[in-house]
Amino acid sequence: MQLKELGEKALIEILDKRFSQTNPRVIKGIGDDCAVTIPGNGKVLLSSTDTLTEEIHFSLTYTPAKLLGRKLVNVSVSDIAAMGGTPQFILLSITMPSTIDEGFVTELYRGVDEACRESNITLIGGNISSTPSEGSIVLTSTILGEASKDEVIYRSGASAGESVYVTGAVGAAYLGLVGLQDDGPSAITRSPYRNSVARHLDPKPRTKIARTIARKGLATSMMDTSDGLAIDLATLVEASKVAATVKTTLLPISKEMQSYLKKEGKDLRLPLRGGEDYELLFTAKEEHKKEIVLLAEQSGIEITQIGLIEELDKDSETNNVRFLQNNGTELKIKDKGFDHYK
Amino acid sequence: MQLKELGEKALIEILDKRFSQTNPRVIKGIGDDCAVTIPGNGKVLLSSTDTLTEEIHFSLTYTPAKLLGRKLVNVSVSDIAAMGGTPQFILLSITMPSTIDEGFVTELYRGVDEACRESNITLIGGNISSTPSEGSIVLTSTILGEASKDEVIYRSGASAGESVYVTGAVGAAYLGLVGLQDDGPSAITRSPYRNSVARHLDPKPRTKIARTIARKGLATSMMDTSDGLAIDLATLVEASKVAATVKTTLLPISKEMQSYLKKEGKDLRLPLRGGEDYELLFTAKEEHKKEIVLLAEQSGIEITQIGLIEELDKDSETNNVRFLQNNGTELKIKDKGFDHYK
Repeated sequence: MQLKELGEKALIEILDKRFSQTNPRVIKGIGDDCAVTIPGNGKVLLSSTDTLTEEIHFSLTYTPAKLLGRKLVNVSVSDIAAMGGTPQFILLSITMPSTIDEGFVTELYRGVDEACRESNITLIGGNISSTPSEGSIVLTSTILGEASKDEVIYRSGASAGESVYVTGAVGAAYLGLVGLQDDGPSAITRSPYRNSVARHLDPKPRTKIARTIARKGLATSMMDTSDGLAIDLATLVEASKVAATVKTTLLPISKEMQSYLKKEGKDLRLPLRGGEDYELLFTAKEEHKKEIVLLAEQSGIEITQIGLIEELDKDSETNNVRFLQNNGTELKIKDKGFDHYK
Repeated sequence: MQLKELGEKALIEILDKRFSQTNPRVIKGIGDDCAVTIPGNGKVLLSSTDTLTEEIHFSLTYTPAKLLGRKLVNVSVSDIAAMGGTPQFILLSITMPSTIDEGFVTELYRGVDEACRESNITLIGGNISSTPSEGSIVLTSTILGEASKDEVIYRSGASAGESVYVTGAVGAAYLGLVGLQDDGPSAITRSPYRNSVARHLDPKPRTKIARTIARKGLATSMMDTSDGLAIDLATLVEASKVAATVKTTLLPISKEMQSYLKKEGKDLRLPLRGGEDYELLFTAKEEHKKEIVLLAEQSGIEITQIGLIEELDKDSETNNVRFLQNNGTELKIKDKGFDHYK
């Protein structure tokens, strides 16, 4: 049944039933002008908003609705993780043409519900509205979380002499996207895309390991990788007023990516520019190296030291992030990543 | 210059400069994975999300960008007002095709900035992304505010015997929309649309008067009128598990609306179904009547008693909201207001 037959009110009633769980911190969830929630005693509030737009961030030709719902939640959860916080509440605004099938929406919300339960967060606000029939689906999530003030990790805390770390494999989500665009949904079943496709369609926010990093004070700066490592690291060093040198031999490149690069005759600029990994990029002092290695072992999540933070040479007009290759030459990356308007 | 020439980064830099004001409650605003803010001591957090979509909520043929920016903020501020709270922070997600002119965006943000200053709120989060060139502009705002727990006014607090009040004139914004759709932007200069057009393009959130109502405990239930009075009152009585009878002779109908209805041969169902007034709809006990009359005089904002709350007749299959005319007959409203998918 299309939404135009079902109607907005009936749709909201279907969705409300799904999200009826109770949370002692929620005085009022969906169903009033605002949600009313109880802030954590002595904690700071973390908030962030993200949008997924059809044909820009996803295509329905290869994106299952349920995974889209999961991703909508998890890209926002990743923002809370990147600050070292605990996600708590989410508000969603869904804009869709009335020709969309009810089944798509219920699957989307099934994914939202599942991801919320996994991260122990409550949907407290929703907005559903129509868009002209030729318009794109636009999904916006706003997440609220909290942290102890002294545990929050900003992008701006890196200092010269510290190491640069990244979780997971660089560019995996982008390779998955390439696979989906080239081969359609079946890419998930085929080499060399299988694992990469899962990274693109269903990114896993690094909340738990990020909380440990924050609680133990292991990182001096942190952010999630969403625009591609090259642009994300440039963002981090700019915020911290430092520079960074990455050794390209240290970069964690998956076997799938290695075989893809070989096959296509491409170099590491491809994974370095690939967005949407939603991994953690952070800096840490030398004294915490052992603990970080241990954390990787215990969590089962790969953490790789990829380079060093250096003083910013203010007179230099060169890039603040250098990618040094084994032969001593620099891998130049001009167009570092995705720009929504270029 | 179109956004595709300017680029996302340059655009964000232009916008960042505008929103550089300091707020002691904001530890980190725009520029990290999350905003970090300090919650009010002992207060509850209010949050709400709203979306304005091109060709659904507005058309660029008659909507100045600056007023659109103001409205994007103020429809969200209105949600905080409707709970009796104080608005504080706002996060915006803007989705636009790259063919949009930079001038449109800077004007939009000029309106956002102006409305934020008027309500003393800080923009703490933003997201700008592209949409396919044939896609609609989609603007989502998420507002955060606070209130003392015992001052929050819900939709669900109305009891039999209480009076129903509404601020402003019913259906004014809708008449403005009709004028703009019929006559284009020049409607704002012409009778019978002039004031109504202003109500549609630039709604004024009733924050101050709502705060007084909340602080003095004058209302038992409250909400803002966004879907049309008929549907909004039905929502309120449903949440409160009561019924309501409105006397149509009491409805505050502007002179512009009166002359429009006369000219077009239409009745009060038109203003009762007209959305986007963003006025306050509330219920109050008899003992507070005098104070409410005084409040209207002092604030200069019209507050009209339009009917009474009654016990819900659970066996009755009739409507929970009746509109009684002077001749004793009921004005039947079948399709009460706007449904996004019907």
